[in-house]
Amino acid sequence: MSGSGNLMDFLDEPFPDVGTYEDFHTIDWLREKSRDTDRHRKITSRSKESVWEFIKGLLDAWSGWVVMLLIGLLAGTLAGVIDLAVDWMTDLKEGICLSAFWYSHEQCCWTSSETTFEDRDKCPLWQKWSELLVNRSEGASAYILNYLLYVLWALLFAFLAVSLVRVFAPYACGSGIPEIKTILSGFIIRGYLGKWTLLTKTVTLVLVVSSGLSLGKEGPLVHVACCCGNFFSSLFSKYSKNEGKRREVLSAAAAAGVSVAFGAPIGGVLFSLEEVSYYFPLKTLWRSFFAALVAAFTLRSINPFGNSRLVLFYVEYHTPWYMAELFPFILLGVFGGLWGTLFIRCNIAWCRRRKTTRLGKYPVLEVIVVTAITAIVAYPNPYTRQSTSELISELFNDCGALESSQLCDYINDPNMTRPVDDIPDRPAGRGVYTAIWQLALALVFKIVITIFTFGMKIPSGLFIPSMAVGAMAGRMVGIGVEQLAYHHHDWIIFRNWCRPGADCVTPGLYAMVGAAACLGGVTRMTVSLVVIMFELTGGLEYIVPLMAAAVTSKWVADAFGKEGIYEAHIHLNGYPFLDVKDEFTHRTLATDVMRPRRGEPPLSVLTQDSMTVEDVETLIKETDYNGFPVVVSRDSERLIGFAQRRELILAIKNARQRQEGIVSNSIMYFTEDPPELPANSPQPLKLRRVLNLSPFTVTDHTPMETVVDIFRKLGLRQCLVTRSGRLLGIITKKDVLRHMAQMANQDPESIMFN
Amino acid sequence: MSGSGNLMDFLDEPFPDVGTYEDFHTIDWLREKSRDTDRHRKITSRSKESVWEFIKGLLDAWSGWVVMLLIGLLAGTLAGVIDLAVDWMTDLKEGICLSAFWYSHEQCCWTSSETTFEDRDKCPLWQKWSELLVNRSEGASAYILNYLLYVLWALLFAFLAVSLVRVFAPYACGSGIPEIKTILSGFIIRGYLGKWTLLTKTVTLVLVVSSGLSLGKEGPLVHVACCCGNFFSSLFSKYSKNEGKRREVLSAAAAAGVSVAFGAPIGGVLFSLEEVSYYFPLKTLWRSFFAALVAAFTLRSINPFGNSRLVLFYVEYHTPWYMAELFPFILLGVFGGLWGTLFIRCNIAWCRRRKTTRLGKYPVLEVIVVTAITAIVAYPNPYTRQSTSELISELFNDCGALESSQLCDYINDPNMTRPVDDIPDRPAGRGVYTAIWQLALALVFKIVITIFTFGMKIPSGLFIPSMAVGAMAGRMVGIGVEQLAYHHHDWIIFRNWCRPGADCVTPGLYAMVGAAACLGGVTRMTVSLVVIMFELTGGLEYIVPLMAAAVTSKWVADAFGKEGIYEAHIHLNGYPFLDVKDEFTHRTLATDVMRPRRGEPPLSVLTQDSMTVEDVETLIKETDYNGFPVVVSRDSERLIGFAQRRELILAIKNARQRQEGIVSNSIMYFTEDPPELPANSPQPLKLRRVLNLSPFTVTDHTPMETVVDIFRKLGLRQCLVTRSGRLLGIITKKDVLRHMAQMANQDPESIMFN
Repeated sequence: MSGSGNLMDFLDEPFPDVGTYEDFHTIDWLREKSRDTDRHRKITSRSKESVWEFIKGLLDAWSGWVVMLLIGLLAGTLAGVIDLAVDWMTDLKEGICLSAFWYSHEQCCWTSSETTFEDRDKCPLWQKWSELLVNRSEGASAYILNYLLYVLWALLFAFLAVSLVRVFAPYACGSGIPEIKTILSGFIIRGYLGKWTLLTKTVTLVLVVSSGLSLGKEGPLVHVACCCGNFFSSLFSKYSKNEGKRREVLSAAAAAGVSVAFGAPIGGVLFSLEEVSYYFPLKTLWRSFFAALVAAFTLRSINPFGNSRLVLFYVEYHTPWYMAELFPFILLGVFGGLWGTLFIRCNIAWCRRRKTTRLGKYPVLEVIVVTAITAIVAYPNPYTRQSTSELISELFNDCGALESSQLCDYINDPNMTRPVDDIPDRPAGRGVYTAIWQLALALVFKIVITIFTFGMKIPSGLFIPSMAVGAMAGRMVGIGVEQLAYHHHDWIIFRNWCRPGADCVTPGLYAMVGAAACLGGVTRMTVSLVVIMFELTGGLEYIVPLMAAAVTSKWVADAFGKEGIYEAHIHLNGYPFLDVKDEFTHRTLATDVMRPRRGEPPLSVLTQDSMTVEDVETLIKETDYNGFPVVVSRDSERLIGFAQRRELILAIKNARQRQEGIVSNSIMYFTEDPPELPANSPQPLKLRRVLNLSPFTVTDHTPMETVVDIFRKLGLRQCLVTRSGRLLGIITKKDVLRHMAQMANQDPESIMFN
Repeated sequence: MSGSGNLMDFLDEPFPDVGTYEDFHTIDWLREKSRDTDRHRKITSRSKESVWEFIKGLLDAWSGWVVMLLIGLLAGTLAGVIDLAVDWMTDLKEGICLSAFWYSHEQCCWTSSETTFEDRDKCPLWQKWSELLVNRSEGASAYILNYLLYVLWALLFAFLAVSLVRVFAPYACGSGIPEIKTILSGFIIRGYLGKWTLLTKTVTLVLVVSSGLSLGKEGPLVHVACCCGNFFSSLFSKYSKNEGKRREVLSAAAAAGVSVAFGAPIGGVLFSLEEVSYYFPLKTLWRSFFAALVAAFTLRSINPFGNSRLVLFYVEYHTPWYMAELFPFILLGVFGGLWGTLFIRCNIAWCRRRKTTRLGKYPVLEVIVVTAITAIVAYPNPYTRQSTSELISELFNDCGALESSQLCDYINDPNMTRPVDDIPDRPAGRGVYTAIWQLALALVFKIVITIFTFGMKIPSGLFIPSMAVGAMAGRMVGIGVEQLAYHHHDWIIFRNWCRPGADCVTPGLYAMVGAAACLGGVTRMTVSLVVIMFELTGGLEYIVPLMAAAVTSKWVADAFGKEGIYEAHIHLNGYPFLDVKDEFTHRTLATDVMRPRRGEPPLSVLTQDSMTVEDVETLIKETDYNGFPVVVSRDSERLIGFAQRRELILAIKNARQRQEGIVSNSIMYFTEDPPELPANSPQPLKLRRVLNLSPFTVTDHTPMETVVDIFRKLGLRQCLVTRSGRLLGIITKKDVLRHMAQMANQDPESIMFN
């Protein structure tokens, strides 16, 4: 928090780098806000001077919307390009299009004259590798050749990806959401949202998704969108020079990222609000919505899915759900919660092992090994061979009359005369039983491999694998319930709503509910999850099943540990993130947390008019504090302000270079008027302009709960502790975090009364 | 902010009324939060003692969800009952059902054997008053009799409503949203959400809506839902004893209210977040969503609209929109913004006149006069005679093949062989031209009468009239564009997308866009507005038109004044509401705002150990401050804490009654240990437990911008101002509000440099 008065004359001085932050430091939200208000005030007052200034003022006011438009356009375009490239490269693992090698399987057979879906799938223009190389499409040798090439392509893609990440942008790995959460909360990680990261992440994302690894593109798309946001905000001084304002843009960019990932603009905004953002004023809500919409419509114009649908998994169900089905939905919620807990625990344990043992030294080898295992195990099973999003799409789908999938291999009643979309429940055919076995194997494989995949040095999202796990489990449960209802429709639970010949159970809906449950268990999203799922189906009808599963899943998972995967990774990496969701309920006081503690040397302070330049320089050299409180005198210890280390150094350096008569034993003063000095003393140095005259203070009796609240809501870096106007100590954001971690590991009762 | 330590032993004392607030006072959010944490801690520590306590702890943890469930059920039920009653009573103005008098027109003719809609409308069981009384259904005398009875019924309903409000619950008038916003921001208005208000508002809402006045039930439904929330929260000590927690429940209840008003649960949550709530933690988001869903599903089970649709105006359009149509959509946005501005200015001017002149003394007469004018003018025009929600529904509808409405009287091509739902654009018939004239007259009438209706002493919502104005304007523009496109499809703007025989313009969509624009102009809602509209149509397709109109409308309206209708009414009524949206950008400092100002007598303070009981009682009697800072001594002025007036009074009263030896000249001390007193002095009174040891302080150099931010984010009541540890003054929430109002009326430049 900086007095705007002194800031103004300070900014007029030609100091370089003032008002910026060092890497891995925390920004001061109040100060950023105050600086922006100053800027705004300047522009408003100037705009009355001339027409040109007025236009400049208007442009400045509109620049927020322009940035949103640009982010939406670029994020939508990138998402479209990624989708197209992934489609092509995924198919490249199996074969190639003869008419044009850059066509994916679907595009290649688009114009084919075959009428049924199955025939069109085997159009002559699309050649499997075995057909192209040894001119055989069936038989063991063809299978082995295809298998081999599938694995080789996967290894090539993965190797390229991990090499690109290592060489060009180490920050491009992972999902990026933990880091973005940390950045949005006010931490500086230089280069994390840079242009190289943007480029590398986009390219490697295509590679890793195409390689068939068990990961998704949704999290990384948020990172990509945030990089776009960072890029465009650097074009406008309003955002580039103010870390607080920049974060507003980034929040909106995150919304745009989810919007294009799922085609769910409202869900994207809520995701940004609920999961990612820290400071989310209403203005940002509105702008996020705009960015998310522009992004979604740009993506729709590119039309990567070829169906002019906005959403990733478009589904339409024809039957309502019944109250009795809530039971299996809640069961799926329990499964989702358990899977979430299991995944988080195992993944964090594995990542910790990677960090602490030699394993972490061979990231390329690790990626190669995991890719090899994934490809080798995945190929024989059709449900793991296809891309994960295709799998989810298939699992979500209702079995219509035209569906040729194995999952829809039911035994038809030859006398059936119903309309196409209202097919009654039927007994399962052999295909369905095969599918269930394959799904069960795929489920186990996905669960295991995802734990090892997430956290490697490649871009990797978690949404799609989690949803796949849930969708597989859900579909199996759904088929089970359906068959149970078909064969036992006289049971009391089925009798009321499931007559013979009725279409009462939709296994696709179970898959969707399962996907929501697993995603909820891993990320602990709630409202945004349900809204995303609701936007996928486009019907309010299924909100209750989704919500029942999401709530159950969150409760079950929370019972085993409050942290979602993103928070767990934030803690693993030790980022200074003060979570809005954590409730601090311990009875400690500010005095228990502040430094210096009992027995420690006293706080390093500056006096307002008695220290020399040399004293201060020594103090700066000997300590590594970010700033020093300034007091009237060491005896009275009455606080007058706070000086940042960085600004003190800059000011002294500047004064020594430019101001005459400043020597090592010049007195430094922070008061308005110079102190009365002996006649022969050197020129004193006035440093009032680097003094923050309104430092934040609390009394030593303030409960830590309140202090945590203040740090969170006002985004402070530090806070001074006083008693009866005397300075006692200081609490920094890191002290708060350390204290919270300590408290979480201890019994609250043991602290309550000591 | 209260030190939790001293609060605990204070609460153990048997003081009555401690921790409650007086009417028309502001709550202290930090203190409420701290009290809740204490409560929570107690329960957690107790729950380890016995199984019973553990169960009690579990119940306490679940009580939030139970309250939400109950609110959802009751709000949904009330909304359903209101809908049914309004339906019946609206029809009662025109006639009665012979088979059962409690049937509405639609229910009465439900089982009728007539096949077409028009014939069914005239089923024999439903008798107009003229048919029943003079056995005539046509002719001048029948018309006059029906006219007269229509006016008389309207007058009766309105008179009943205003009398009920005056006698039973004066707080039941108006929309309630301005007051709810104020209450949620932390103000206490006792009885505003009471049981009588709930009952009276529900009954009178039915009466006024049925009377045909130009008002809606949406705003009042929010008030009704909040009353339900208040009622249920009073059943659980967790909420009834904590004003902060109670407000979390009320936020969720507001969401449930909008959810049932429109059948839009997500829109309701966003409305609560964007428009109504002040403190909206993520936990509340999730619970609001739950309450909104339960409410929506309860309403759907009651099924008041008879179509098992959740939404108020269900529409389905069959054609997409085209880029060129954005121009008329934006024009509608401009219209909406202008109407919003006009409405707010005129309505506020009229309400101010009502407050300040003799007009306000005759509320019953005012209602009677306005009702009489409304009924007399409304009857001859079919678009004003029908209920406003029916009107909106008709305007939103696309003209299908079965539509018999006058608005769908197009000239059909006899050779038309298209399917039912894909009707090409056709030339307008006579009915459409008549409809346009009637709509134009209805539009002018609605605009004028709504200004006088909103603010009378009856429940009155603004959503429906605003939407009606926009829908009428939009439908007219839509028909205009449609006819233009039909007759001039060779024009360059139509050539690309509107071939002859194509269905390219949907006038119903224009009506919807117009409704969104007008609603946006009046309320300045943005995201929630678009989401509500999106939930009404259920298609992402039309988000861009809606957003274009909503954004334009907001920008146009904001250009004439930043205040929405609710903020305007808050200011008119002088509620102490610190708007989150107002940005404070002036360069004043805390020292400019604090009291005492220059030249005023010094701040009334208590000293820590030198004042007698009598001194303090005199001080309390002579001043009306809410609390007093406690300093070490008058000379040093070092702050040690803050004592609330209310608690001081209670403590002294308590001590005088119960504690022996406390007389008027007993010394009061706030320190840990009693001061050293002369031997013959009376027993001193220890008051440390009423001392807040962690009062909030800022320095005199703190920019007011930061102070405003702190007040907003932490929900403070007051803040002390210090310089170098010495107490200088105090800033209360009202000082902040007064200063902001002052600044808003002055040129910022004039303050900047003085």
